[in-house]
Amino acid sequence: MDFTIPERTQIICEMMDEFVKKELFPLDSIGLGSTDWAATEKELGKKREMVKKMELWAPNHPKEFGGMGLKLMEHAYVSEVLGQSSLGHYVFGCQAPDAGNIEILHQYGTDEQKEKYLKPLVEGKIRSCFSMTEVDMPGSNPTMLETTAVKDGDDYVINGHKWYSSSADGAKFAIVMAVTNPENSRYLQASMILVPSDTEGFNLVRNIPVMGHAGAGYFSHGEILYQNVRVPQKNILGGEGQGFVMAQDRLGPGRIHHCMRWLGICNRAFDMMCKRAVGRTIAPGKKLADKEVIQSWIAECAADIHAARLMVIHAGWKIDQVGASAARKEISMIKYVVANTLQKVLDTAIQLHGGLGMSSDTVLCGFWAHERGARIYDGADEVHKVSVAKQILKAYRME
Amino acid sequence: MDFTIPERTQIICEMMDEFVKKELFPLDSIGLGSTDWAATEKELGKKREMVKKMELWAPNHPKEFGGMGLKLMEHAYVSEVLGQSSLGHYVFGCQAPDAGNIEILHQYGTDEQKEKYLKPLVEGKIRSCFSMTEVDMPGSNPTMLETTAVKDGDDYVINGHKWYSSSADGAKFAIVMAVTNPENSRYLQASMILVPSDTEGFNLVRNIPVMGHAGAGYFSHGEILYQNVRVPQKNILGGEGQGFVMAQDRLGPGRIHHCMRWLGICNRAFDMMCKRAVGRTIAPGKKLADKEVIQSWIAECAADIHAARLMVIHAGWKIDQVGASAARKEISMIKYVVANTLQKVLDTAIQLHGGLGMSSDTVLCGFWAHERGARIYDGADEVHKVSVAKQILKAYRME
Amino acid sequence: MDFTIPERTQIICEMMDEFVKKELFPLDSIGLGSTDWAATEKELGKKREMVKKMELWAPNHPKEFGGMGLKLMEHAYVSEVLGQSSLGHYVFGCQAPDAGNIEILHQYGTDEQKEKYLKPLVEGKIRSCFSMTEVDMPGSNPTMLETTAVKDGDDYVINGHKWYSSSADGAKFAIVMAVTNPENSRYLQASMILVPSDTEGFNLVRNIPVMGHAGAGYFSHGEILYQNVRVPQKNILGGEGQGFVMAQDRLGPGRIHHCMRWLGICNRAFDMMCKRAVGRTIAPGKKLADKEVIQSWIAECAADIHAARLMVIHAGWKIDQVGASAARKEISMIKYVVANTLQKVLDTAIQLHGGLGMSSDTVLCGFWAHERGARIYDGADEVHKVSVAKQILKAYRME
Amino acid sequence: MDFTIPERTQIICEMMDEFVKKELFPLDSIGLGSTDWAATEKELGKKREMVKKMELWAPNHPKEFGGMGLKLMEHAYVSEVLGQSSLGHYVFGCQAPDAGNIEILHQYGTDEQKEKYLKPLVEGKIRSCFSMTEVDMPGSNPTMLETTAVKDGDDYVINGHKWYSSSADGAKFAIVMAVTNPENSRYLQASMILVPSDTEGFNLVRNIPVMGHAGAGYFSHGEILYQNVRVPQKNILGGEGQGFVMAQDRLGPGRIHHCMRWLGICNRAFDMMCKRAVGRTIAPGKKLADKEVIQSWIAECAADIHAARLMVIHAGWKIDQVGASAARKEISMIKYVVANTLQKVLDTAIQLHGGLGMSSDTVLCGFWAHERGARIYDGADEVHKVSVAKQILKAYRME
Repeated sequence: MDFTIPERTQIICEMMDEFVKKELFPLDSIGLGSTDWAATEKELGKKREMVKKMELWAPNHPKEFGGMGLKLMEHAYVSEVLGQSSLGHYVFGCQAPDAGNIEILHQYGTDEQKEKYLKPLVEGKIRSCFSMTEVDMPGSNPTMLETTAVKDGDDYVINGHKWYSSSADGAKFAIVMAVTNPENSRYLQASMILVPSDTEGFNLVRNIPVMGHAGAGYFSHGEILYQNVRVPQKNILGGEGQGFVMAQDRLGPGRIHHCMRWLGICNRAFDMMCKRAVGRTIAPGKKLADKEVIQSWIAECAADIHAARLMVIHAGWKIDQVGASAARKEISMIKYVVANTLQKVLDTAIQLHGGLGMSSDTVLCGFWAHERGARIYDGADEVHKVSVAKQILKAYRME
Repeated sequence: MDFTIPERTQIICEMMDEFVKKELFPLDSIGLGSTDWAATEKELGKKREMVKKMELWAPNHPKEFGGMGLKLMEHAYVSEVLGQSSLGHYVFGCQAPDAGNIEILHQYGTDEQKEKYLKPLVEGKIRSCFSMTEVDMPGSNPTMLETTAVKDGDDYVINGHKWYSSSADGAKFAIVMAVTNPENSRYLQASMILVPSDTEGFNLVRNIPVMGHAGAGYFSHGEILYQNVRVPQKNILGGEGQGFVMAQDRLGPGRIHHCMRWLGICNRAFDMMCKRAVGRTIAPGKKLADKEVIQSWIAECAADIHAARLMVIHAGWKIDQVGASAARKEISMIKYVVANTLQKVLDTAIQLHGGLGMSSDTVLCGFWAHERGARIYDGADEVHKVSVAKQILKAYRME
Repeated sequence: MDFTIPERTQIICEMMDEFVKKELFPLDSIGLGSTDWAATEKELGKKREMVKKMELWAPNHPKEFGGMGLKLMEHAYVSEVLGQSSLGHYVFGCQAPDAGNIEILHQYGTDEQKEKYLKPLVEGKIRSCFSMTEVDMPGSNPTMLETTAVKDGDDYVINGHKWYSSSADGAKFAIVMAVTNPENSRYLQASMILVPSDTEGFNLVRNIPVMGHAGAGYFSHGEILYQNVRVPQKNILGGEGQGFVMAQDRLGPGRIHHCMRWLGICNRAFDMMCKRAVGRTIAPGKKLADKEVIQSWIAECAADIHAARLMVIHAGWKIDQVGASAARKEISMIKYVVANTLQKVLDTAIQLHGGLGMSSDTVLCGFWAHERGARIYDGADEVHKVSVAKQILKAYRME
Repeated sequence: MDFTIPERTQIICEMMDEFVKKELFPLDSIGLGSTDWAATEKELGKKREMVKKMELWAPNHPKEFGGMGLKLMEHAYVSEVLGQSSLGHYVFGCQAPDAGNIEILHQYGTDEQKEKYLKPLVEGKIRSCFSMTEVDMPGSNPTMLETTAVKDGDDYVINGHKWYSSSADGAKFAIVMAVTNPENSRYLQASMILVPSDTEGFNLVRNIPVMGHAGAGYFSHGEILYQNVRVPQKNILGGEGQGFVMAQDRLGPGRIHHCMRWLGICNRAFDMMCKRAVGRTIAPGKKLADKEVIQSWIAECAADIHAARLMVIHAGWKIDQVGASAARKEISMIKYVVANTLQKVLDTAIQLHGGLGMSSDTVLCGFWAHERGARIYDGADEVHKVSVAKQILKAYRME
């Protein structure tokens, strides 16, 4: 039994923490409200240069491509630190969805694709998106995908209607999930195909206004119509019909980093709560922090964050021990636990801040609005609960 | 024991309901995201004209000034209907904060003030704001007000820093709460003073960005610096030091209408939940509505809304029977009950809608973001709970 | 809209309230822990005599049989008052399951049955039980009943295994739910049959220890084996296959009284909370009631009880207006709302009382342990939620 | 980062687990309902002999006195295994309150006291109790203790009224917390004094009926009147005025074992839930386990138990690293987290079992009733939350 964080990881985290607090906290409103992407990109580009000079760029990506090559659990702690700011992952070159796409290209890409897409992606010169969720189909049911990729000569011809393709605006390419093998059994019908965004028929309809913000560039969620989009068959990534398996693989370790990013937000909100509590006078000589109701909120949030964090760390450790597949239960569990902890902590932090919490003068309401999606995307709470229960009950059914 | 809604009220409600659904639902994104107030005002102005022609204008205001003169409980049901749209109260001429200001002017205004401000206010020709909450002071503690109004010759000279003065942008005047009698006991120090917004020293610093939206015109929340604002002493409304008493009076019956507006939102969100549940296919031949988890959400929301609604109706009835002062406990109680019901119902509705719920393609996320304030303004949950408990415990302490 | 309680009802309630507090509160430990039923019955018998002398006996039963003949809503308020003590309904002659059995006998009994069973039942001279729930079958699914009643000559021969036949110990007869028509559609297979408890083959196996208490006499829950129990066919109550319809009918108005009984317990626990809060010193000069955490508990419980109570009253009113069948949704809703309110209020009251709350020195822990069943019997929370949701969604599905 | 349980610990746990399930589960009703202590003691004595023969006796106690000498975290896992049965700790000789008393005697006892009390206590030949909580004083405020020990000649004369002195019935001695130094500052007024139970003036008034069960012998909670109880001054344990410091020390590592015991109960209840879910038919061909509502309960309980367990393990690890004093926050936190998890899991398990869950045919309701105290004793939830918050906020206040 050992909860010690290795010294090297600690040092990296401390360096990043200092940078995030000093350089990114003042800019956080950008991430949560950016509309002029050109200006934003330029400003964040300067920070990226600073990060590269500090040799903290792309912590999770392979050294051969210019990353730091951190292992699963090392990057977990890094992700928690970066998650404190809405800009952290982007500025340090380990942002979703590019991070996941890089993994796929690394594992399945041809040399040509690696040269053309993977390299500049790791370097932060281009961006990409991942196009799976469909407007009319439930994200929770992977067998109900309407987008198709039909072979025609040497090409695939893709048709479909996707949305919540995050960061599609300005992306160089999309990895599209499409049904290539409708004759297969339900989990083996779809494939991942690389589609450059300048291909004819790739139509970014709009940036979906989420909580009233359409956003722009990296900070946006695209609705895309694929209309007779023609790409060479070699653009397939991994084998035919392997799309879901690959999507699952992508989610496992990625979930650890994702959840640690959420915990970074929790930590920041919690820190703000405590500062506000000791700073806010509510009656002569009496601070908010003196009230037992406020104290109980702080004690409950502290426990919730602590518990959620231990679960994520444990899940990461288990992946390291037995692999993502054998840790599937733990990976599902942290999804609903951390997402709900995040919502509760942000809600409490806003309540504690009163009117200030409602205003964009702090980051709280931005996080609260945008991260409401945490309980929905990548499998809603309900989907993961059913999944966890089925895994548990399977053993009992066999008795 | 009788829960029947009088026939006349029912008829009015049905007429309004039809109008709200047909004319206002399609425009709802305006209320939740308006930035070009000039255009918005024009468009909504047309709807106001329709309402006036239908003789449904200003339902809660006195007939002598052009309103319908509805009684407390009649307007309660009306408010529930109008609340379904974010534009309802504005388009029917019974929107806060003008409604409250009209009551104050009606009761305390001079003939000159009534002619100059009250009349055009009821007619919808001008707008106003109510300026009480201060940036640095807890809204929950009325004895901690820093804004002062000092007599100087025939005038008051006002200095202070207010925020969340809703709809200040474009308002013709503000009713300002300021300390006029610091020597008095704590609840008798402040007064309400009418301040035209074109008075020198009245500085609208900004529209506060709430959940990322600064809004505009009626749909905004102003931060106002009062810098040596000079108004005649006759601009006082009610007696010196009577500000809090009047503010309390304002809140009592107003709370009923406010809570019914929230219940209107609940009803709409609930209706959307049910429609989505029966409409959304999640697997071949299986609808969202077929899942027991979804059913339990619907059953719980139905019960919560029903319970909250009965409490509001009962509180209104009690005000009618014994007056707002004797119904103080009930008036406090519905604040936290309905505000929390509202948040829960909206949260559930979003979860049920999945990605669509996060997008501004429905009204859900707009309501969810903006109405988060429900648990904060006009006394946070915690403040009202303490108030209710103290009233209950007082009787026991005396035993 | 009118929440006034009629004066006559008020007077009756006040008389009963005084009696309950003075005569029954001191004896409450009997109801929650009785093991020597003979002694208990004698002691409670004296109180029953007092009630009869006050002409408050059998408030809900027909005047012709010696009751007060109160209407649905009148008895609702009475039930709330009596519910404050675990002995109230028994001492006033309106206890379950006799009350429901009386209704059935009244409506469906032959003259002979009325003379032999109904009369002494109303008079409190005998007791009865209702035998529906089965050990191996889910109470939530009425089509899965294993007890059968097979015609043989002029008799029915009954075989089955029932439990939770409350008050079977010492009961003169049982009304047994048994399948008489297995060939019918699922809701028309069972009938109600009157079975004297001295019939051969009627075997009371044991009083089920509930939360460690087997109880005795009226305060017990029987497990009964029906082994070739032979009764005349005329012992059927109502038509063949009508059992479920009759059981449903029995539940409707009965639910109102049941829920009001639970609210009586809530009221008592709440009153105890308030008394404890103002009486308990936690530091020199500081009472429990001075703590905001405690105040928030009181405010939340007050609101929950108030809301639940309004829902029950409304459901009762609706039954009076449109009948139990059309008020089915409301009748289901109050089941889970009030049962959960009850559990929460008792839990809070115990927490507030600390060690004292755990001890049987107060009634709290007795209620808490025994009324845990409230969320289970007569349809678990989950069953009623599904039922409510289905009724709501039916309208949407037809659109 | 390492969550591996050492192999030796695993082996011990597996041996104990087998024993607990085979030998103790069938007897569990004794622990939760024992009234005839003589018979119970005899039966459990046989099991104790078996344990001794297996050399698994007194796992947490020093080897020199016949225990296994397990370290903090080793005994943590053991405690989880034993906690599955209400008899586990008793049968394995590591039961509260003797375990804590043994630690105190070991550290502070004279050679004579060790010989006379410590040795037979470890051997299970005698029992003891710990007498701190007072009837009229809040357990949460250690400065409000009314029991006094006044020096008189070579003796202390003790007067006071204690309750919840667990297992006092039949105990050979009590360790009594009494004020010896009222002149000292608030946390240095009380001392621990060893009082043989046959001393004159030591009056066990009763076994307090908890949830209706007075229990007997080891399974009871005593109310004790100390009336001029005279013991030699050398019976003091530790220094004068050190009582609270020693009580705190006693709580730290003990809390880990206590919480693991609760988690043992959670594990058992969870296992029962899963078995019931897959075993219970609710409709032809449909099991309880097939319902998504049930699945979500299982997923939530699994996550709650897992999170709580990780927190306890982490707290134990931290004690090992930095000592109990520096881990005070974590030790407080697990108290309210695990106690609430326990209540929730038991509540869910009962609901899932329906009527069976209410009956003493399973252990669920016994645990549910008796362990309600978990949120109360050793510091109520609220006390620990305030403590945690104050520790967290202290750092912020000093900024």
